[in-house]
Amino acid sequence: MPVPPREYGGTERIVHTLTQELVARGHEVTLFASGGSKTSAKLHSSSPTPLWQNGADALAWHAMEVEELVNQSSHFDVIHSHLDVLPWLAGHRYEAPLVTTMHGRLDLPDQRSLLSRFREWPLVSISNSQRRPVEDLHLNWCATVYHGLDLEHMYELGDGAQGHLAFVSRLTPEKGPDLAIEVAIKAGMKIVVAGIVPDEEKDYFESKVKPLLDHPLVEWAGELDDAGKNRVIGGAAGFLVPIQWDEPFGLAFIEALATGTPIISSPRGSLPELIEDGRHGFLVSSEDELVEACRKVKTLDRAECRRWVLERFSPPRMAADYERVYDGLVTEARSAAG
Amino acid sequence: MPVPPREYGGTERIVHTLTQELVARGHEVTLFASGGSKTSAKLHSSSPTPLWQNGADALAWHAMEVEELVNQSSHFDVIHSHLDVLPWLAGHRYEAPLVTTMHGRLDLPDQRSLLSRFREWPLVSISNSQRRPVEDLHLNWCATVYHGLDLEHMYELGDGAQGHLAFVSRLTPEKGPDLAIEVAIKAGMKIVVAGIVPDEEKDYFESKVKPLLDHPLVEWAGELDDAGKNRVIGGAAGFLVPIQWDEPFGLAFIEALATGTPIISSPRGSLPELIEDGRHGFLVSSEDELVEACRKVKTLDRAECRRWVLERFSPPRMAADYERVYDGLVTEARSAAG
Repeated sequence: MPVPPREYGGTERIVHTLTQELVARGHEVTLFASGGSKTSAKLHSSSPTPLWQNGADALAWHAMEVEELVNQSSHFDVIHSHLDVLPWLAGHRYEAPLVTTMHGRLDLPDQRSLLSRFREWPLVSISNSQRRPVEDLHLNWCATVYHGLDLEHMYELGDGAQGHLAFVSRLTPEKGPDLAIEVAIKAGMKIVVAGIVPDEEKDYFESKVKPLLDHPLVEWAGELDDAGKNRVIGGAAGFLVPIQWDEPFGLAFIEALATGTPIISSPRGSLPELIEDGRHGFLVSSEDELVEACRKVKTLDRAECRRWVLERFSPPRMAADYERVYDGLVTEARSAAG
Repeated sequence: MPVPPREYGGTERIVHTLTQELVARGHEVTLFASGGSKTSAKLHSSSPTPLWQNGADALAWHAMEVEELVNQSSHFDVIHSHLDVLPWLAGHRYEAPLVTTMHGRLDLPDQRSLLSRFREWPLVSISNSQRRPVEDLHLNWCATVYHGLDLEHMYELGDGAQGHLAFVSRLTPEKGPDLAIEVAIKAGMKIVVAGIVPDEEKDYFESKVKPLLDHPLVEWAGELDDAGKNRVIGGAAGFLVPIQWDEPFGLAFIEALATGTPIISSPRGSLPELIEDGRHGFLVSSEDELVEACRKVKTLDRAECRRWVLERFSPPRMAADYERVYDGLVTEARSAAG
C-alpha cells in the first residue's frame, strides 16, 4: 500500500506517522512500501504502483519486498514489520532483529493457529486487550505501543454546540449503528449517521440500518471528507459508536476526542485503555445505560478530552515507545552475538 | 486445497495423480495439503478443513505449511512445490533441494518481476511455450514435464456418431466460445456449448455469447458432470475450443482426445506441443480455416487420438519425467555438499 494512504487504511497511516517522526528524531529510516508512497525516509518501492491498482498480485510483490529486505538486512540495526506472517518465513536469514506490530484482531482461529506456530518472533500489540485471546500461547510480546497520530493538526477543538450525537464509522454490525440510532431516539436526541457501507455489508445496511434513517431525529450524512468529519463530530455532544466487538485499537475514537467530543460506547476491546470512563466518555453495556450516558455526556470537559488524546496518542510518544522496543532488541541481539 | 479436488482445480488433480503414481512406484511421499485430502501418500494437513471453506486465511495456512516443511525438510531427499513464490522466501533453510512446477501463465508483468528476483530456484515448466515470455531471464529451468492424468479410466473412446461439434470449457473470452459458435454456424454443423460462466465473466457471457445460443444449430447444455462430458465430447465429431490466449497447458484438450475426439483450435500456447497438427486435430488461426477444419475433422482417426494421449499424457510418463528431475537435483545437491 502507498504510504500515507490515499483512502482508508489505518495501518498505513500509522506507518507513515511513525516513519516521519523517527526521521524527525534523527534516525536513518528506509521505508519498504509500494510505489506512489511519499515519505521523508529513504523509500524502497518494490512495486511501481500501489498494489490495489491494475489487479496487481499483492502476494508476489510482498514476497519480492521480503526478499529484498533479507538482502539489505545487514544495513539495518532493526527491522520493523507490519506485514504479519510473510517476513517470518525468511526465518533466520535476516542480519538484524525483526519485530512485528500486529495490527489486526487475534481472536480468529486462523490467527491463533498461525501465532502458535511462529511463537519465537518478537511482537508488539496495539492494546493490551488485543493480546487477550492468545494470552495462553505465551508469545514473545515486547510491548504494547498505542498508536499515535498528528491529531493536533488534523482536528480542531469543536464546541459541541449543535448538541447532537454523532455516529461516524464504517456501517457494520460490529460498530452498532442500529443500536446507536435506537439509543439516540430513546434519549430524544438528534443523531447524525455517516460512514462507508462496505460491499459485504450492503444487505445488513438495507435491512437493519436504512429503515431507521427515516426517523425525524436521524440525519444521514453519507460518506464524509475530513472537513465534514471535523464539523459533524466537533459539533456533536457525544461520539456514539457502541461497538459490539473487541476492537484492537479504534483510531476513530481518538480522532473524535481530538475534536473534544466524548465517547459513548461499550467497555470492550481497547476502549477501557484509550479513555478514562466518566472523564472522556462513558463505557457502558446496556441500552438503558447508553441512553443515560447520552443525557449526561454534555457535563464532560471537552478541552480535557482533547488534551488527553493529544498527549497520550501523539507521534512523539509512539516513536519514543518504539525506540525503547528497538533498543531492547538491539541490545538482545548484541548480547546473543557475544 | 484438498487433493484430489472436489470441484474444479487442475493443479490439484495433477498433484494428486503424481502423488498416487509415485507411491505406486515405491517412493515414500509426504503430501502437504489441506484437510479433507485423500491420498495414498503420508498426508500432512496444516489446516483442518479445505482452505476455501469458512473464509479461511489461505496465506496464513500456506505460511504454516511452509514453516512445517522447513522443519521437516531433513527427512526428505527432494521437495516438490506447487505453491510458486511462498516457499522461496524460506531461502536456504531447507535441508533438501526444492523444485517448483509453475502451473500458471508467465506472460503477466507481475510474474516477470517475481521470477527475475528469484531466479536461482529450480523450475519445471508444463510446456515449452509456457517459458517463452520469460526466456530472456535465463531462469533455472530443469525440464518441461507435460501433465499426466488417468485418462484411460476417466474417459471412454466415443464413436463421434452424433457428428456435432463440442465446445466444453469455461465461458471466457480466452476460450473463444463466440468464435466457436460462429464457426459452427458457418460450417453448417450443430454445436453443443457447455461449461461454467465465471462470476467475473457474466457480462461477457450475457452480451457476447447468450445472443448466439438461440440459433437452431446451437444447443446450450450448461454445466456438465463427468458422465455428461463423456457423452457430449465422445459423441462429437470435433472438440472446437478456439483459444485466444497462450494457454500454458490445457487439460481439457487431452481429455477430449481421450474420448477420441480431435481438436480444432488455434496454434497458440502449448497446443502445438500437445498434438500433431493434421493427425489429432487442426490448429489454424483464421475463421475460414476453422470452418474448413470442422468440415474435414471426421476424416481423422479417433482411435489414434486416444492412443496418442493415453501414451503421452499418462501418470507413469509424468512420474518418470519427475523422477529424472528429482534424480538430477539430488545428484547436484550431493556434489555441492562435497
